[in-house]
Amino acid sequence: MAQYVNLRNLKFLLYEVFGIESLTKYEHFKDHNRESFDMILDTAKQIADNLLYPTFREMDVQEPQLENGVVNVHPTIKKYLKAMGDAGMIGATYDYEAGGGQVPASVYSLASFILSAANNGASMFTGLSSGAARLIISFGNQELKDKYVPKMLSGEWQGTMALTEPQAGSSLSDITSSAKPLEDGSYLIKGQKVFISAGEHNQAENIIHLLLARIEGAPAGVKGISLFVVPKFREENGQFVNNDVAAGSIYHKMGQKSTPAMHLMIGDNSNCKGYLVGEANQGLKYMFQMMNEARLGVGLVGASIATNAYYASLQYAQERPQGRRLDEKDQKTTPQTKIINHPDVRRMLLFQKAVAEGSLSLLLECARYADLIEVTEGEERENYSLLLDILTPIAKTFPAEYGIKSVSEAMQVFGGYGYCEDFPIEQLYRDIRIASIYEGTTAIQSQDLLGRKLTMKNGAAAMALMQEVSKTLQEASTHEELKKYVELLQKELGRMQQVMQRLLGFAMKQEFELFLADANLFMEMASLIVISWQWLKQATVAKVQILTKNPQGEELAFYESKIHAMKFFFAYELPKTKWLATRLMDDEVLTLAQEQKEIIV
Amino acid sequence: MAQYVNLRNLKFLLYEVFGIESLTKYEHFKDHNRESFDMILDTAKQIADNLLYPTFREMDVQEPQLENGVVNVHPTIKKYLKAMGDAGMIGATYDYEAGGGQVPASVYSLASFILSAANNGASMFTGLSSGAARLIISFGNQELKDKYVPKMLSGEWQGTMALTEPQAGSSLSDITSSAKPLEDGSYLIKGQKVFISAGEHNQAENIIHLLLARIEGAPAGVKGISLFVVPKFREENGQFVNNDVAAGSIYHKMGQKSTPAMHLMIGDNSNCKGYLVGEANQGLKYMFQMMNEARLGVGLVGASIATNAYYASLQYAQERPQGRRLDEKDQKTTPQTKIINHPDVRRMLLFQKAVAEGSLSLLLECARYADLIEVTEGEERENYSLLLDILTPIAKTFPAEYGIKSVSEAMQVFGGYGYCEDFPIEQLYRDIRIASIYEGTTAIQSQDLLGRKLTMKNGAAAMALMQEVSKTLQEASTHEELKKYVELLQKELGRMQQVMQRLLGFAMKQEFELFLADANLFMEMASLIVISWQWLKQATVAKVQILTKNPQGEELAFYESKIHAMKFFFAYELPKTKWLATRLMDDEVLTLAQEQKEIIV
Repeated sequence: MAQYVNLRNLKFLLYEVFGIESLTKYEHFKDHNRESFDMILDTAKQIADNLLYPTFREMDVQEPQLENGVVNVHPTIKKYLKAMGDAGMIGATYDYEAGGGQVPASVYSLASFILSAANNGASMFTGLSSGAARLIISFGNQELKDKYVPKMLSGEWQGTMALTEPQAGSSLSDITSSAKPLEDGSYLIKGQKVFISAGEHNQAENIIHLLLARIEGAPAGVKGISLFVVPKFREENGQFVNNDVAAGSIYHKMGQKSTPAMHLMIGDNSNCKGYLVGEANQGLKYMFQMMNEARLGVGLVGASIATNAYYASLQYAQERPQGRRLDEKDQKTTPQTKIINHPDVRRMLLFQKAVAEGSLSLLLECARYADLIEVTEGEERENYSLLLDILTPIAKTFPAEYGIKSVSEAMQVFGGYGYCEDFPIEQLYRDIRIASIYEGTTAIQSQDLLGRKLTMKNGAAAMALMQEVSKTLQEASTHEELKKYVELLQKELGRMQQVMQRLLGFAMKQEFELFLADANLFMEMASLIVISWQWLKQATVAKVQILTKNPQGEELAFYESKIHAMKFFFAYELPKTKWLATRLMDDEVLTLAQEQKEIIV
Repeated sequence: MAQYVNLRNLKFLLYEVFGIESLTKYEHFKDHNRESFDMILDTAKQIADNLLYPTFREMDVQEPQLENGVVNVHPTIKKYLKAMGDAGMIGATYDYEAGGGQVPASVYSLASFILSAANNGASMFTGLSSGAARLIISFGNQELKDKYVPKMLSGEWQGTMALTEPQAGSSLSDITSSAKPLEDGSYLIKGQKVFISAGEHNQAENIIHLLLARIEGAPAGVKGISLFVVPKFREENGQFVNNDVAAGSIYHKMGQKSTPAMHLMIGDNSNCKGYLVGEANQGLKYMFQMMNEARLGVGLVGASIATNAYYASLQYAQERPQGRRLDEKDQKTTPQTKIINHPDVRRMLLFQKAVAEGSLSLLLECARYADLIEVTEGEERENYSLLLDILTPIAKTFPAEYGIKSVSEAMQVFGGYGYCEDFPIEQLYRDIRIASIYEGTTAIQSQDLLGRKLTMKNGAAAMALMQEVSKTLQEASTHEELKKYVELLQKELGRMQQVMQRLLGFAMKQEFELFLADANLFMEMASLIVISWQWLKQATVAKVQILTKNPQGEELAFYESKIHAMKFFFAYELPKTKWLATRLMDDEVLTLAQEQKEIIV
């Protein structure tokens, strides 16, 4: 089996960079220790090796089809759901009382990462169930919890997230699915939902949709949206009956084909019942909990696909002979060299390593904040919340956008072979492209970062982040080798300050289009700085380990590769901020719609 | 039928920007005029509308399969080859005596562009025949010409380019296919060729491979390679017999599925005859003629796919309502706006327009130089040759690399719908990805530009290019509105000068790895400057037309859109040179292989 993750790197991040063991000092995590953490990663690796990796290709070729109202997905999905349920992996992070294992999100996210690296589409089935069940646990009443959560956590039932509608897309305030109160306390649901992942399939006994709809008479806009549990089969007098959720059609996607994306017709026969979760009109607020989790989940998908492609192209580059080194005097009779010796191939490999491992580091940082929010209080907790809030859109977007570029570089390393089905790259290339679209496109994330997260609470989140970065800068600056990079990053923080001042000026003047027109470019600039921070953090730890542990051989190479990848990111990627800042500081207005004329033809 | 090209833009480039009509003053083109040029474009549009566009999707779904040694491609290919043959389009640019129509390459390249925009894979069948026939015409003896060219130009026979071998890939000096002289003057050919587009199919009566092999005893390296005609069926005593060229396997590609890429087993039964083209050991030199043409052809494919995707996403953006303008006070009850009114969507559309139309402009510039090389002599001709030489790698690479980004932005405009088969975008996204791989990867093109074209003849090509750019700068600077952009481009030329000086310093010291390690970044920097030049040229012409012709309505909007797209490219894309130059001027060596240790893990 080819390598698709490197456990050494996961443990480096978990224990050496983020010191996740220290979480066990808190009451909530007190039953855990390094052994139990390792066991969770090993369980994930085992399930991935046995069920997911071997079926990755098959699930793409045998794309799910809708036949007679039923979607046939690959039979391994049932085994996978069961294996994950049996291992307690679907609800691993939940409280004991909710049937969970109180596993830190940090550890769980690495387990998800392993599963997704092996087979990104398949791993979504459990990711969706996990997120949907958490919504019920957090906001539902006891009856809902008792009825739905255990079967979702055991893998018998599938959970989904049913938000998007044909006329609304990214604009959730425009959803029109309706809910009419019934005498039994439930609601009659009617509407259409589109792009519902795992929205229908034959490998789970029931499918539980966490669905947004408007109760009759609710206010317009986002404040009139409520959250419902809408099962495929509802229980009535001890019997499960069809709940009038029909598979209208299946989308044939370019990638992630293993997971069917469904167009659902809900209540076409006026016989669909939904069960209100929490209070009426609070649905979007509730859903945001799942969405934030899902956004980090998409970041993990991006990072994991890029990781798989990185190792595949690294192996190919180590084995494939072609051409000679440019400095080779005898170009005719010298045997061909391995392509890893060509500077351009090394550049593409280092780019992939920097993107994949930089992304994962940021995602783990976010998961750690989520864990600390769970166990701390007061100001400390507020600080971690701010950090998680501001980093979530970046942790969704960078692994998606740069992951797409990264897999493309992996394909380029393979040349023509990478474009063909003989290697996994072309599938990974198709799979990862969705990451910058679903769970909020890059444009949505960028507006969230610049328009909301940066300004909220008088810029408190940005300030909290600045403090975290400062800590890293301080630690790094004690090492001579790293000083140059400390200075580079400091300079970037100054540049960012200037850009923010300028943009926030528009916000103050209520010129929101000017404020947000180039939010995507701002996102890229912020991402480059944040990922540089993560790389400096990793390099500093690697430096300390080299100095204190005297590692040899592979261990030494591992630590040195961390420092090298950091240098690469600072030299090749971070300077993009110069370009981005040039545009972001420019007065020329070019993308605002003029009422009077159309100049895009 | 959805729009996939804009004839107005093609005629703007052809007549207003490049004044191609003026070619008719030369003897070689004297039978042509604007009417005959327009007729060629119209013929291409008609064939594209009738045969290619309607089958674009089908040819992807009904991917060619290899069965019993035969590859079944879509039956429309036969009709297409015939239609093109009947219209005299396959050999349109050849001399009358070779059966051609002495059509300028400029006009022909726009015809190819139209065909490729409609169905990029299908258009390759005739492109390959055209290039292969030209090799025979240029270098073959009369017997070869008489025997092969007419049937290739009529569309009855298919031409191919058979270079790549499994062990050699991009490194042509390592090919091992062998040729053994036979008594009848032909050669016994033996070897394997991989990734041969249209290398086997059932829609042509014969397939004529222009194949590279080594004659027994030939010198090692590139100087021992000869060019052969190797037909699928060879004529013997008036009969066509099997020539022992077997379809070993077919590659299943991610995109461009309509065109089968073949692994060919040649002479496995020691019964394959090849016919030497021109002199022995001159094969690579000959083939370079076809390869240069093919490289511009790939540039056209990139530009045409990006163009198709641009118009598709433009139409979608004009029709799809979603969300409200950011400056809208009433976000609740105002009807949703069309997404083209969102600044971020406009940015993505302008990016696409700038890439597609900027690329096509450069490609037409190259075709014009090719035409002028045909009809001029002495110093003038030498100057055009230099320009074509230095611009070819850029004209292959920019439309490929930026075309890939551009189609990705088109998909982003569509959101989730773009990721599904309902729209053509996902196919275009898969199709265009090959453009940066085949006919020399981006790395190969970049080394060609920096390592060969820039240094040849003491930098004469770079100097010739600088003079051409200066002419445009001078013309643009007479318009107040354009002065700002003239200054920006001048500044970039200075920055480029610095970068070149530094890099050429390594070449002087024979430090070739340091010289070429970041050739890809140099390519991107040079491309951005060259495309900016093309945009300034287009904007200047548009400005003059507005001032002198007093255009109204759609015509005015067309010209204004040109000036606007130029400004966009200068504001959003050109500043990337700051990032690229930062890296290219940096002393830190990070991608050279060290003999002693491996730091990519």
